[in-house]
Parts: sequence; C-alpha cells; structure tokens
Amino acid sequence: MSRTSRSCSFCEGREDETAAEILALRRPDTRVDGPGWQVRVIPTEPAVLAPGQAVVAREGVYASVPGIGAHEVIVETPRHDLDMERYPLDHMVQILGVYRQRLWDLTERQGLPFTQVFRNHGAVAGAISEHAHSQVIATPVETRWLREELEACREYHRSEGRSLFGDLIEQELAERERVVTGNERFIAIAPYASRSPFEVWILPREENPHYLHVRDSDLPDLAAILQKVLWGIKNALEDPPYNFVLHTAPLPAAGEETPSYHWHIEVIPRLTRLAGFEWGTGFYVNPTPPEEAARFLREVLALRGTLA
Amino acid sequence: MSRTSRSCSFCEGREDETAAEILALRRPDTRVDGPGWQVRVIPTEPAVLAPGQAVVAREGVYASVPGIGAHEVIVETPRHDLDMERYPLDHMVQILGVYRQRLWDLTERQGLPFTQVFRNHGAVAGAISEHAHSQVIATPVETRWLREELEACREYHRSEGRSLFGDLIEQELAERERVVTGNERFIAIAPYASRSPFEVWILPREENPHYLHVRDSDLPDLAAILQKVLWGIKNALEDPPYNFVLHTAPLPAAGEETPSYHWHIEVIPRLTRLAGFEWGTGFYVNPTPPEEAARFLREVLALRGTLA
Repeated sequence: MSRTSRSCSFCEGREDETAAEILALRRPDTRVDGPGWQVRVIPTEPAVLAPGQAVVAREGVYASVPGIGAHEVIVETPRHDLDMERYPLDHMVQILGVYRQRLWDLTERQGLPFTQVFRNHGAVAGAISEHAHSQVIATPVETRWLREELEACREYHRSEGRSLFGDLIEQELAERERVVTGNERFIAIAPYASRSPFEVWILPREENPHYLHVRDSDLPDLAAILQKVLWGIKNALEDPPYNFVLHTAPLPAAGEETPSYHWHIEVIPRLTRLAGFEWGTGFYVNPTPPEEAARFLREVLALRGTLA
Repeated sequence: MSRTSRSCSFCEGREDETAAEILALRRPDTRVDGPGWQVRVIPTEPAVLAPGQAVVAREGVYASVPGIGAHEVIVETPRHDLDMERYPLDHMVQILGVYRQRLWDLTERQGLPFTQVFRNHGAVAGAISEHAHSQVIATPVETRWLREELEACREYHRSEGRSLFGDLIEQELAERERVVTGNERFIAIAPYASRSPFEVWILPREENPHYLHVRDSDLPDLAAILQKVLWGIKNALEDPPYNFVLHTAPLPAAGEETPSYHWHIEVIPRLTRLAGFEWGTGFYVNPTPPEEAARFLREVLALRGTLA
C-alpha cells in the first residue's frame, strides 16, 4: 500500500472531499481543511444524528425518540498505509487525547451524556473505509450494555461493599491465566466467558469510571498497551476484522453518586458468525476459551520486537 | 440443484453418515436410519451440550454452569433441492409438529425448560449445510432475550392489567401499516423499531405463551403464514440469508403464574453488519423503516401465485 490512495477521501490532500473539519491536530502554518494535519475529526455524512431535544413520543404500546445526537469520524492519520498498531507512540497518544477531547466537547458543551468511541477494522467489522479511522457517537439516551454494566456494578457494590471491576482485576492478576499483558497503569485480559474468540479487554488498574478523567500522564501507558494488544491480535490471527469499543460512564448528574466502575476498551475480533442461537438467546457460542486465547497472545507478544 | 447432492450427509440414502436418528417421520415399511423418511431429527456432533446437572460454580466474581442441555438438527426434507417456502403444506405442518414434539420431549421428559427452535438459512446466517434444516437447543438456563420479554410482559400486566402482546397486536391491526399479512389465527408484522431491515414477526392472534400448547388445528394456518413470509422475503430480497427463532415461554413451575405472553417466530434477514456501534451499545442501526418493509412485502406477496 502507498502513503495515499487515489480513491480515498480520508487521505491528506483530499480534505475538500469531506465535510468541514470539527477539529484537527495540524501544523500551525497550515490552513483549516487543507493538508498538514496529523489527526482530523469530521462529521459523518449524511448525518443520521442531529442536534435537538430528546422528547420521548408515545404511540400506544411503543415509545420513540428522534435521532438526536452526534456522529463523528476521527481520521487517525493522513497516511493510507498505516494502521493503529504501527503509529509512533506519541501519535497514538495524540489520538487518545482527541478521543477525550471529543467526549468532553460532546458531553459538556453539547449536553450529550452518553458517548461511544469505537473502531471498526475490516469490511466484515463494518469499516466504512480501509483508511485508519475511529468513530464517536454521542446520544441523550443511555445505551443498553452500559446500563447493564453500571447496574451490575451498583448491585455488587451494594451487596459486597466493593468495586466489581476492582475485584475482577484483583482476581485476574492473582489467577494470571487470562492476563494477556500489562504495564504500570493498565492490564489487558481475555475476559472470563468471552463472547468471541480472542476478545480482549483493556482496563485501568485504578478505579476511574470516566475516560473524560484520564490524566495526560496515563496516555502513554494506554497507547502502549492498546497498540500491543492490536499488534498481538493482528499477528496471532492474520489481520482479522475487529471492533473495539470504549465503555465509559456518563458523568453523574447533580446529587447522583459516582458509580464504582472502570472505563475500559473491549476489543472484539470478528471471527465467528452470529446465527439463530445467538439472535434467539443473547448467548454466544465461542469455540476458543479465553484462557487459551490469552496464552496464545502472550506467546505471540513475546515475539514482538523480533518481528516487524 | 438436483434432488440429492453427492457431498451432503443430510440427503436421503446417506443416513449412515450421521448420528443415529432421534426421531423420524418415515414410511412404516422402512428401517430406522435408512431411507424413506420425510423429516429426520439427529443430534449434533460433536455434542456441545450434554445431559447432566446444572450446578452453578462460583469462581470469585464469576459464575459458570457446565454445558448442560441438548442440541438437535431437524432435517426438514430428504431432498437437497427444496427449501421451506416450497414444501407442500402438509409437509410444512409435519415439520411444525416435529418442533412441538421435540420441545415436549426436551421439556417434559428430559427436564430442560428453556427451548429454542431456530433456522439458519445461508452461510452468512451461520447455516451448517445448504440442505434445508432447523435446529433445536434446550438448556436448564433461562435465555437472556426471553427473560427480558417475559419481564416486560409481567411489568406491563402489573401496570396496565392487560397483555402487552395482546395490545401490540390490537394496535398493529388498527394501524395496519406494519402488517405484512395475516390469516384466521396468525398475523405477520414488521415489528416497530425493527433491528434489521425486513425483520418479520409471526404471532398467534390469541394469547398462548407456549408453543407446546399449539393445537393441531392451528398448524395449517401457521404453516401457511410462515411459508408466505419466507416466500415474500426470498422474492423481495433475492434469497437473503436469514435466521428465524421461535420464542416460547417455559411452562410455569408449580405455584407459578402463567405469563401473559404470545409465543412467536422472529424472522431476521441478515442484510446489515453488526459493527462497533452495535457491539458497544446494544442498539441497532436499520436503514429500512418497518413501515416501508411491510409495504414492499405486501406488494411482493400480492404477486404470489402469479410467480413461480
């Protein structure tokens, strides 16, 4: 692959083919919507989500809310021939900072408390381009999985008086068999009862419900572990399609308690197909136990540095 | 396609290539595990689920149950060149009766209360063979979606004093715009806020939580509407991959109330891909409103009989 692709509107020099940028990290001597950027954020077009009031409409037994919210694409690099696991570390840190900046703007300035950063890699995983990009969606509506996680954490805290994710991390570090890798501030595990083969979660060791509250000093460790995990998955499985999703709690409303929760990133390689059983039950059939996946990823990661 | 395929172990005459049959509708002069059957039920191999006690094991913050249950394949026809929408009506009735018979056996005789009948059509939908087949899974564990549906129905009954599915059917019949087709005992609708384009649900008009309690006299109407819906989807969308799933409530335990619920079949064409947004949120992006899908299916179904 070359540095630019003639048919790719995310490449440097083709900025006039996209909507006007929302934010770009660019050299000071360059102009908005021109070349010279490192990371560039643009709205999706056509917009499915738009600003407005999230009024619930009732129609008999049904309820609906209009498509209120925001949906942005974060073009991670001007280059067409690079993917996330290969960025220089300081570039990866910049991207993670852009995630935080966009969440701040969407939450605090635009009043959209429920935010999703996600990355689709490969057509099977729903990628809209092969040029490296992430996406962010913000809505006024609490998402289903986040609500379930937060409820489970609250329930555990009520009954046990402790943090569910805190206990989970402690148990994983004691048992070690599902730990993929770790550094000073983060660990990566193949989660117990993974939905997909080689699913990996990256969690901060210290409790923090909000990605918004990640400190600058945490970002290099986060950048390093995320790149390491993606490198491991790419090399263990021959560049599989994957999704990753950042789970982060909304900031508590006035008077509300901060949930006992760890924001985290879930990386889900797309190696299996959902069939009738999964659609019917909400259960997942996974042929690769997480303990095996973690062991294999550890073996592959031991070769990192010796491989390209 | 010809009546038999040389590489298909579900075809008539290849019975020795599968596990021994659990049940077959066959001519009285034929031998078990030989040719001469119309519908044949076999266990899946290798078995992922096995008989046993569903004891919950606790490991720190985690809980697990062993793979207890049963998983069977219902080979719907000896012919390789037929699919469900084209069976003679009495053959379709036989298949629907076999569903009920297997649910009865798994529930009442084998003590597995949570049963799933499903059908995967096309490789994208996870089909294990192109030879027409359905599957049944029974477990001691309540499945996630069924639990949510039953809870919503109980909650609605508590607050409104009425049946949620009953009110839903009444509303759909009054509004008509999401109704795909109907007959004396069943209706087919494109559900409000469908997850997938052209999703269709088939429901009995009369309340009945348990497919086990379907009467023989209901089966011809059910066979007719299911074949009609599958024919419509196949012809509207050029034979798309799809899953269908039968949702049915477990029989109430002694002293438990019968839930106010309608068993139903959910047909889900697999036209969209799940990406990071869906994995992250549990929400679905569906580009085709159910009202449009229902209108288009009605138009296509108006041509049935004039087309092959």
